[in-house]
Amino acid sequence: MNFKEELKKYAKIMDAEIDKKVIRDDVIEKKLNKSVEYSLMAGGKRLRPILMIATYELFKNDYEKVFPFAISMEMIHNFSLIHDDLPAIDDDDFRHGKPTNHKEFGEATAILAGDMLLNKAYVLLGEELLKNNGDTNLKIRAFNELTHGVDRMIIGEYVDTEFEGQKISDDYLEYMHKNKTGALIKASIRIGAILAGASEEDLENLTQYGENIGLAFQIKDDILDIVGDEKVLGKPVGNDIQKHKSTFVTKYGLEEATNRLENVTKEAIEIINKYPNGEFLKELAIYIKDRKK
Amino acid sequence: MNFKEELKKYAKIMDAEIDKKVIRDDVIEKKLNKSVEYSLMAGGKRLRPILMIATYELFKNDYEKVFPFAISMEMIHNFSLIHDDLPAIDDDDFRHGKPTNHKEFGEATAILAGDMLLNKAYVLLGEELLKNNGDTNLKIRAFNELTHGVDRMIIGEYVDTEFEGQKISDDYLEYMHKNKTGALIKASIRIGAILAGASEEDLENLTQYGENIGLAFQIKDDILDIVGDEKVLGKPVGNDIQKHKSTFVTKYGLEEATNRLENVTKEAIEIINKYPNGEFLKELAIYIKDRKK
Repeated sequence: MNFKEELKKYAKIMDAEIDKKVIRDDVIEKKLNKSVEYSLMAGGKRLRPILMIATYELFKNDYEKVFPFAISMEMIHNFSLIHDDLPAIDDDDFRHGKPTNHKEFGEATAILAGDMLLNKAYVLLGEELLKNNGDTNLKIRAFNELTHGVDRMIIGEYVDTEFEGQKISDDYLEYMHKNKTGALIKASIRIGAILAGASEEDLENLTQYGENIGLAFQIKDDILDIVGDEKVLGKPVGNDIQKHKSTFVTKYGLEEATNRLENVTKEAIEIINKYPNGEFLKELAIYIKDRKK
Repeated sequence: MNFKEELKKYAKIMDAEIDKKVIRDDVIEKKLNKSVEYSLMAGGKRLRPILMIATYELFKNDYEKVFPFAISMEMIHNFSLIHDDLPAIDDDDFRHGKPTNHKEFGEATAILAGDMLLNKAYVLLGEELLKNNGDTNLKIRAFNELTHGVDRMIIGEYVDTEFEGQKISDDYLEYMHKNKTGALIKASIRIGAILAGASEEDLENLTQYGENIGLAFQIKDDILDIVGDEKVLGKPVGNDIQKHKSTFVTKYGLEEATNRLENVTKEAIEIINKYPNGEFLKELAIYIKDRKK
């Protein structure tokens, strides 16, 4: 397996599937739709959908069954980025090397585009449930993973915002990160497993894998904010320090954060090694640790 | 039937049901939860849940079955009010006679409280679907009414914001109002009918009733903004003129708006008169027309 090729292939598939959901009619609300499209097609890594599909593929081959959930997850991820970047929250001007949504379309449209993306995710899943094609029970379980994951993500975002500029305890930092980034990553993996009809034991294993790479993802984000290359990242570095944010790096230092990143990645790999066809997810854990953006 | 007593009874039941969903734990995110509670328990009329229950009761008696949808609808209505009031959108300082959410809790928390309320509505319905108690197909249909209604509501909100200060055509005004206020009112009625297993013919009738009272509600809102009593309304009057908003009144004048209000109310009543036990919904149409707030 050539991991980089596989990763690109998955991302391309997801790009095409998400593109199909973009509304390009010449309607009264076309600027709102353009604002939604701007974020959805901004060049994100599609990490969450790819995690969902790859987890599903540990058990089954017909991965297109996961698409409605994968697309919904990416819509919700983009909703969270748009609202996260708003002046009242993180006040960020750049993302993926382009102006943030509110910089491009104005704050009112950005708020409503975020609202629309969150709701559109549920529109899509409602339509999926209507199909009633035999897997409704699994889909309802997966749906509940998503709603609860989003709830946790919003809480994480709130804690991040509310305690900006304050020294927070280890517990708070852990709680924030577990929720803010970890909740949707974990939910993506659990949804993939649930839709594939995984056993409770597998679900438990994969949840632990998900918690570890979720943590790894956030620690790496914190590290990149210090040592990343602005041109590669597509956004300024040093943001966290400037805003007096508590991160793994500002709290424990670069060395300890790096050690922690190595350890949680190792733990994720140990779990996924139990699965004969888990190679892609193993490489994905390494990719998350080593990524430059 | 004493309509006012019935209306109060329903509102009290809904207040109690919604209150049960408020989280009052002493958790890290307690300020976020307080912000959610502040809006949910601010003294709203519970019009949408009441419409849903009363429509259901045209056909069936066990109206507590509607509660999860009724509560979700009210959560979504409150999400829309919080985001609507934000400085970047309508920039309103008062609602129900109290400071708006962002005035009380700050903009960041208000944005996230709105997000949370929208998502919590779907958390609640996901849990309802999990119960799998025989009515899952009807619930999935009702769920789709909700997601699509919210989509339309957000579009209406966008059109209202985007074209503020501009002269807009009759078509745009109609489109905006049909979506902004009408979509959730219509969805409330359709959800009540669907959950009760109403026939397609009844659903069609009640949809027309819903469209008429949705329009009536918005026209009355526009009229109250001119001739309402600030103390009764709990918010300043004259807002629409000051913000150069297109409303039924600013566009057609008070007299024509009042005529239109009478006519759509009459149409709603003609439809509901077909139902022997439709008296409450008939009185509700009159209440919407005559309300002072």
